[in-house]
Amino acid sequence: MAQLIADRRDVDFVLHEQFEVAELAKNDRFSEFNRKTVDLIITEARNLAIKEILPLQKISDSPGCVFDAGEVKVPEPYHKVYKTYCDGQWLAMSDSPEWGGQGMPTSVGLAANEYFYGACNSFMLFNMLTHGAARLVESFGTKEQKDQVLKNMYSGKWAGTMLLTEPEAGSDVGALTSVAKRNPDGTYSITGSKIFISGGEQDMVENIIHPTLARIEGAPAGTRGISLFLVPKYRIKPDGSPGEFNDVVCTGIEHKMGLHGNATCSLTLGGKGECIGTLIGEENKGMAAMFQMMNEARQMVGLQGFANATASYMYALDYARQRIQTKHMTDPPEAGPAAIIRHPDVRRQLMIMKSMVDGMRSLIYFNGMVQDRHKLSDSPEEKERLRNLEEVLTPIIKGYITDKAFEVCSHGVQVYGGYGYIEEYPVAQLLRDCRIFQIYEGTNGIQSIDLIGRKMGMKKGAAFMAFLEEIRKTIDMAKGIEAVKPLAENLEKLFNTYTETAAILGKAAGSDKVLDAFAFSHPFLESTGDLCMAWMLLWRAAIAAPKIGQKKKDDAFYNGQVTTARFFINTQLPITAGRLTAIQVMDGAAVAMEDAGFGG
Amino acid sequence: MAQLIADRRDVDFVLHEQFEVAELAKNDRFSEFNRKTVDLIITEARNLAIKEILPLQKISDSPGCVFDAGEVKVPEPYHKVYKTYCDGQWLAMSDSPEWGGQGMPTSVGLAANEYFYGACNSFMLFNMLTHGAARLVESFGTKEQKDQVLKNMYSGKWAGTMLLTEPEAGSDVGALTSVAKRNPDGTYSITGSKIFISGGEQDMVENIIHPTLARIEGAPAGTRGISLFLVPKYRIKPDGSPGEFNDVVCTGIEHKMGLHGNATCSLTLGGKGECIGTLIGEENKGMAAMFQMMNEARQMVGLQGFANATASYMYALDYARQRIQTKHMTDPPEAGPAAIIRHPDVRRQLMIMKSMVDGMRSLIYFNGMVQDRHKLSDSPEEKERLRNLEEVLTPIIKGYITDKAFEVCSHGVQVYGGYGYIEEYPVAQLLRDCRIFQIYEGTNGIQSIDLIGRKMGMKKGAAFMAFLEEIRKTIDMAKGIEAVKPLAENLEKLFNTYTETAAILGKAAGSDKVLDAFAFSHPFLESTGDLCMAWMLLWRAAIAAPKIGQKKKDDAFYNGQVTTARFFINTQLPITAGRLTAIQVMDGAAVAMEDAGFGG
Repeated sequence: MAQLIADRRDVDFVLHEQFEVAELAKNDRFSEFNRKTVDLIITEARNLAIKEILPLQKISDSPGCVFDAGEVKVPEPYHKVYKTYCDGQWLAMSDSPEWGGQGMPTSVGLAANEYFYGACNSFMLFNMLTHGAARLVESFGTKEQKDQVLKNMYSGKWAGTMLLTEPEAGSDVGALTSVAKRNPDGTYSITGSKIFISGGEQDMVENIIHPTLARIEGAPAGTRGISLFLVPKYRIKPDGSPGEFNDVVCTGIEHKMGLHGNATCSLTLGGKGECIGTLIGEENKGMAAMFQMMNEARQMVGLQGFANATASYMYALDYARQRIQTKHMTDPPEAGPAAIIRHPDVRRQLMIMKSMVDGMRSLIYFNGMVQDRHKLSDSPEEKERLRNLEEVLTPIIKGYITDKAFEVCSHGVQVYGGYGYIEEYPVAQLLRDCRIFQIYEGTNGIQSIDLIGRKMGMKKGAAFMAFLEEIRKTIDMAKGIEAVKPLAENLEKLFNTYTETAAILGKAAGSDKVLDAFAFSHPFLESTGDLCMAWMLLWRAAIAAPKIGQKKKDDAFYNGQVTTARFFINTQLPITAGRLTAIQVMDGAAVAMEDAGFGG
Repeated sequence: MAQLIADRRDVDFVLHEQFEVAELAKNDRFSEFNRKTVDLIITEARNLAIKEILPLQKISDSPGCVFDAGEVKVPEPYHKVYKTYCDGQWLAMSDSPEWGGQGMPTSVGLAANEYFYGACNSFMLFNMLTHGAARLVESFGTKEQKDQVLKNMYSGKWAGTMLLTEPEAGSDVGALTSVAKRNPDGTYSITGSKIFISGGEQDMVENIIHPTLARIEGAPAGTRGISLFLVPKYRIKPDGSPGEFNDVVCTGIEHKMGLHGNATCSLTLGGKGECIGTLIGEENKGMAAMFQMMNEARQMVGLQGFANATASYMYALDYARQRIQTKHMTDPPEAGPAAIIRHPDVRRQLMIMKSMVDGMRSLIYFNGMVQDRHKLSDSPEEKERLRNLEEVLTPIIKGYITDKAFEVCSHGVQVYGGYGYIEEYPVAQLLRDCRIFQIYEGTNGIQSIDLIGRKMGMKKGAAFMAFLEEIRKTIDMAKGIEAVKPLAENLEKLFNTYTETAAILGKAAGSDKVLDAFAFSHPFLESTGDLCMAWMLLWRAAIAAPKIGQKKKDDAFYNGQVTTARFFINTQLPITAGRLTAIQVMDGAAVAMEDAGFGG
């Protein structure tokens, strides 16, 4: 049978052959997670995803979540699956056993999540936010706050969200107007309106914890005056159970292009003056705490996009093998119609999809490995290097992967032809659902600004250098393997052009050409992502090439690795090179344009 | 007030300054259509589009068309607008007065249609198909057939469709299995099932004419055995009025990603053995006739995509001017938040949108002018040259413009941020509706194959040479204008690389590298389209540049033309150059990939 959601052979290849995750088990912290256990986890996750979560996908789209008189009802079948999911402790795979987590490596958890999110992103978004909110409390909360909520959240008994956005404070979080007033007992009374709150209200859980950004009365304007509060839907009684309603009212949900199975809520806090929150962390330091959550969320949004892309690829590949249409060009005249996978333009599309999906998978798991190594390292320098690496990878994973995931999902529709546009088939929904990932948790424009404005210069450039060094290592390694040496050399050329371009761009960003530079931040992010795809695909090819010819049954897979790297490096990277040229030229037309010149 | 759908100043610029359509009025055939009349037509079209058709857009999406027991109900407000549209004779703007057409230049009709389609593509698709079907009958029908249907169709009293696709015959029309059986009276009894029939059933008209492809019993397999029939929904009585039901049964409509306001029907013909058709043209020559209709339809699909793109650009531009968010990077610290149009990455997106929309408009109207000149020319050589040009432009207009229209609409969503994903705002629907244009009337993969497989070699390359010659003329003209000379020179370099690449690709397509070549047909189509955009933008800039400084109120517009050309040529064309490099390298990875290597 055709594989669904993800290609298991490839998942295993990345985990075990490219990154050797089972090596982590040599360390006490991960000693349980040997190869056998890892494989079992992935198999269980895959079963759960395919048998339970995937059947939610259609109903998540229609009718989706329903709003009625302040309440949000999730699609009915969510309830049973949610229970199964929580019972399996899948929500806190990589978290500390102290709070109910399973303590597995992040890289392994990501592989399991690839299946879960690919099966039904709407359903998983609830869990993603719960997890992020719990992590926030774990990092910045008081002991009391942790005791109150963490086990309930990591178990999925309670949910979590993230209350940032307001009508006039979207990308510009610092413009928010929600107010927190100090109460004599040390709590705060919160008033304000929040919009675009994913999972802001739902009926699968007995309580919802809303980490909420608000400004304490008298605090400075802008981001420096924002504090973070723990605001429960129901106040928490001394015995830990949910008590009276905390005046967090859902006033409606959005009618969206996709992701209908996750409610995007408008919330009014303290409309009756009865919304009480407790401070998380220090006063006016809310943004820094929220950034940690956002960083995790951004990486997870990258995973969300990737998961739709890998699912769309699996469907398109299967369809291309099944669908018989039109004689193949070089078949003899008497030949019948061929499976469309044989037609060159369909192959081109499948190669784009595969190279993207493979590259994304490797990059995302690599970022997981970076975090796992960070946990294991005793060296402050190494810890810092790894943290830096994660910082640089975050906007690439969020920004580049979600952009390309949308393109991959669009190819999925195209491979299906007319059927791709029909909602009866799965690829249309994957495309629609995917479109938000480029926007939320910081638009991809913001990700590109983060990359050149913050990450390139971070720690005096050390973070960015650490990133480049990783790529350089792979190129050097691959140059030592005869079968992929020409590919390594081609990538090396592009890499050199890239580093030159980065220097030019960095210099311009610090000069009076700053606006011109930032008009190229997105093309630079895209080029950076292309470079990462090529890096990961070369790495894969370098591991695969020496194994070709060893076992007949594996040859197609390993050959496929080398051919995919070859496709991407020789066919797609020249386009990247062209884009880098444009960045180097850095024509200032976009900035020079008079406003009136845009017309309208 | 912000402009809706299209930028009128730019429409006028292309009609009157770039292509001087009013010059056509010097010829008898178009003598009525002087500048004043043309302007009046566009103004009327714009009013009708904005006041009547645009209000249909939301309801076209939801609830859209509804199927009930064999009948399709269009959204109720369609009926009144349809009457107004038909009363204004807008359906047959450029058709012969003999059959009720207005006889205006095609280029002018396209400008009016830009407004209509941009206002509501779902509604207009009904009319597009009626027009295409009528043209088909006009070109290939007998006098009796024309008398029976043409006036009714061009007036919109009756509708038309196009019955090609069957479940196993999508891209491969030749695989169709519908059967026509000769009757003693010269008519044919048709049986078969058709799917994906846009407007196949509806309730705005008293009859529907279905040009239908079927195979006469005993005819050869494949496309050589296909004949075309005129199949009415209701048989036509001797007095010309609709008579008894002709056994064309709508069995359902598709639930699609977009374009809900046009019913995509499954039709069963002759289920009771009572479907009668008459032959259009000769037996077994149906494909050639249908190709004429498809060519018109392909050009119109390009217009459909463009119309969504221009509407999305107008909305995004207006939003970017209104939406205040985040301090501008080079404003002083105390400055408040700025309109997002000032932020460099938003500008970059608006520049991409504008350059695309402007280039598309010029290319589409240019193609209209080519057809107008064809009508006016007495010279067989010139007529042939113009027909060739249209042949080459068709896959570019269909394939490239619809691909880029989807990208433009996606930028429209991105500029809106989170609001872009909400269906309350107009850009999400434009994106969803737009996605089908890349698929129907021949997928864009097929367009790219048409370009390199048919059009490049057509008339021993004369058609393609005529196309290149037009671009060359514009470059030479622009090189003579100091202000745009550097841009012309940059485009010339790309043009030379392009022609080299075309030669390499053409040679490969005729060699044993044929499959590799066709794996690059789509990148070549994309590069060809990029070249056309640059060509048109340079042309615009060359006309605009000398006018700068003449009238103060026009300066922003003319400067905008030059800046847009500069943006596209200096920022986007380097990417095209990279893609051309990849085509020249022509790495065979996509073809070399083993099927099993794709995984799954």
